[in-house]
This record gives sequence, structure tokens and C-alpha cells, in this order.
Amino acid sequence: MSSKESDIREISGILKGCLRQVPNFPKKGILFEDFLPIFANLDSFRLLVKAFKLYLEGQKVDYVVGLESRGFLFGPTLALELNAGFIPVRKPGKLPGKVLSVDFEKEYGKDSFEIQADVIPRGAKVVIVDDILATGGSAWAAEQLVNKLEGEVIQFLFVMELDFLEGRKKLSKPVFTLLSGQQEALKN
Amino acid sequence: MSSKESDIREISGILKGCLRQVPNFPKKGILFEDFLPIFANLDSFRLLVKAFKLYLEGQKVDYVVGLESRGFLFGPTLALELNAGFIPVRKPGKLPGKVLSVDFEKEYGKDSFEIQADVIPRGAKVVIVDDILATGGSAWAAEQLVNKLEGEVIQFLFVMELDFLEGRKKLSKPVFTLLSGQQEALKN
Repeated sequence: MSSKESDIREISGILKGCLRQVPNFPKKGILFEDFLPIFANLDSFRLLVKAFKLYLEGQKVDYVVGLESRGFLFGPTLALELNAGFIPVRKPGKLPGKVLSVDFEKEYGKDSFEIQADVIPRGAKVVIVDDILATGGSAWAAEQLVNKLEGEVIQFLFVMELDFLEGRKKLSKPVFTLLSGQQEALKN
Repeated sequence: MSSKESDIREISGILKGCLRQVPNFPKKGILFEDFLPIFANLDSFRLLVKAFKLYLEGQKVDYVVGLESRGFLFGPTLALELNAGFIPVRKPGKLPGKVLSVDFEKEYGKDSFEIQADVIPRGAKVVIVDDILATGGSAWAAEQLVNKLEGEVIQFLFVMELDFLEGRKKLSKPVFTLLSGQQEALKN
């Protein structure tokens, strides 16, 4: 294991200790891992950003694309750390001006995401970030939006992942989850 | 004018040039000032955070409270710059665990905001941030939520303000708007 991998693993261990388990949220039977305590504490927030920056070391990133709205909590800060711009992907009707739109499948029903039409120059290197990779529908939609603008998605970054939903199978670019395998169904 | 004031004024001038005017958004007759281009560009995003940091110079800040969801775009980054934690205020049902809730008046109808019940220690110094001060209802609600937790709101920070709505009259603590008087009704 390289020194970088070992640093990331150490940070991951510390941050897992910051998660707070909330039973039956957002619905009965789900043990939700609340990652908001990471942001309430200066040191853990810094470590989160540091770990993603370490992971991307050596790669040129032009834009971080963050998904509404928990992707906004660390996407912009990460963008500054990477010397990159930040671009939001949002629910329909939230972004002003001309937008591109993509529909995607959610666990229950359909949804869509939008991006502003002129925000990513052709060929720009893009990293897509969100708090959690679940079914992968929303991250997939963000990838399609960047593709429509002819940007190049080089990496997906998530804080957590619901491994059993196999969301990463939907995504065609590398996926890194900092705190993997954190969330699962309640045992009873 | 102090050097700090003059620096802030200079940054404000640059950032005003980054705003993009979108007519008839979110509804007909409104000339919307889109501030998202500030975040797409590394330099302007850095200046935005620098201006707020300059403004708060010499004040101890324990927490930045940011309002869903455009307050998330710069609130967390500002928090790190101030060596403070970041706490989100969100729409009902979005925050896991025990929450406190406050109803408030919007331009059309009512809404409410929530904060997690245990996130701010008594007496902590809090700055509340959002993109725009309009009627002031949502910022007022955030202030009530911090008060319920016995935190101490010391400052409100906004990027833009709809002066004619007189939202700052609702707020009992100092209000600073970086790009003041930017938004107005369309002339025709």
C-alpha cells in the first residue's frame, strides 16, 4: 500500500467515527448514516477534502460538478482545493437561463436533473461528486449532462456507497467512495 | 474608507461583473441575477470568500449556518476559512434525527425550516449565510432556530439583496450584503 493509500485509509477511519446512525430515516427499515457531523467539525471537514484531494493527486481537474444538494456541502470547497471551478447540477426549474435536462430512474419512479447550457467548455476534465452512491441514477444523469456539453468526466467521488444497490455498474468512469460499505438495511 | 472597506468594495465591483442577468426567472417580470458564474470560476469564487472573511476580520466565529441550498455553495468554504464548523438549515424532512422547526412567511404562503437539535453548543457565535436577502423570512427563521439552540447569531451575510423588500427589517442582528442593490423588477 502506498503512502497516499495509507493516508486516505487513515482519514477514512477517522471520518467513519464521525458518522451518526439514524434508524428509520428517511423511511422505516433504513439505518441512515448521517454525514453532517463531518461538516460541523472543522478538523473532520478538512480531512474529508484532503482525502479526495489526495486521491486525485496528479490529475488535472477543470471542474467539480456537484449534485443538489448534499453534493454542494463539499463540492465547492474541493473545487477550490483542486484549483477548479464548481458547477451545480440541480432539480428541474432551479437553474436560471438555458439548461440541458436528463431523465433518470430512481428507486421509486422517475426524476430529472439539469445543468446550465454553457458552463463547461468542450474537453474540460470533470469530476462528479455527491454524498452517497445508491442506485446510481442521479450520478448517471450528471454524467450524461456533462457528456452533452462535451466535457470529459474523469472520476466520480462519493463519501458513502450502498454497495448492495450496485450503483457503480451504471457509471462508465472510475468511482471512488471514501467511506465504503457504510450503509445497510436494518437487521430487524 | 479603511483599507479593508476599500478591498471589499473592489472585490464587490469585480464580482458584480460576474453576475449574469436572466430575464423572467423564476417568473415573468423578474430580472434574476444569476450568481452561479462566480463559482464556476476559481478566481471569483476565491474573491467571494475573501470578501466575507475580510468583513468578519477580528470577530470570533464558531459556526457558519447556511440555508438550503444556495447557502451551501459558499457557506462551508467560508466556514473552513474562518476556522469554524458548518451547519445546514434545510426544508422539512431533509435532516435526519431529532430536529427543531420554525414556520415562516414567504412572499406567497408559508414554509418552514429545520435544524438538527444538537448541533450548536450554548453560547456559540454563529454567522447565518444565504445567497440573497429577499423578504427576510427564511433568514429570520434561521435566526429563530439558532436562538432555540441558545447559540448567538452575531451576523447575517448575503451575496445579494432585494432592497425594496426591506427584508433586513425582520432581522435583529447586523446584516452585510456583498453585492447590494443588484436585483430589481424589470422596467417593462
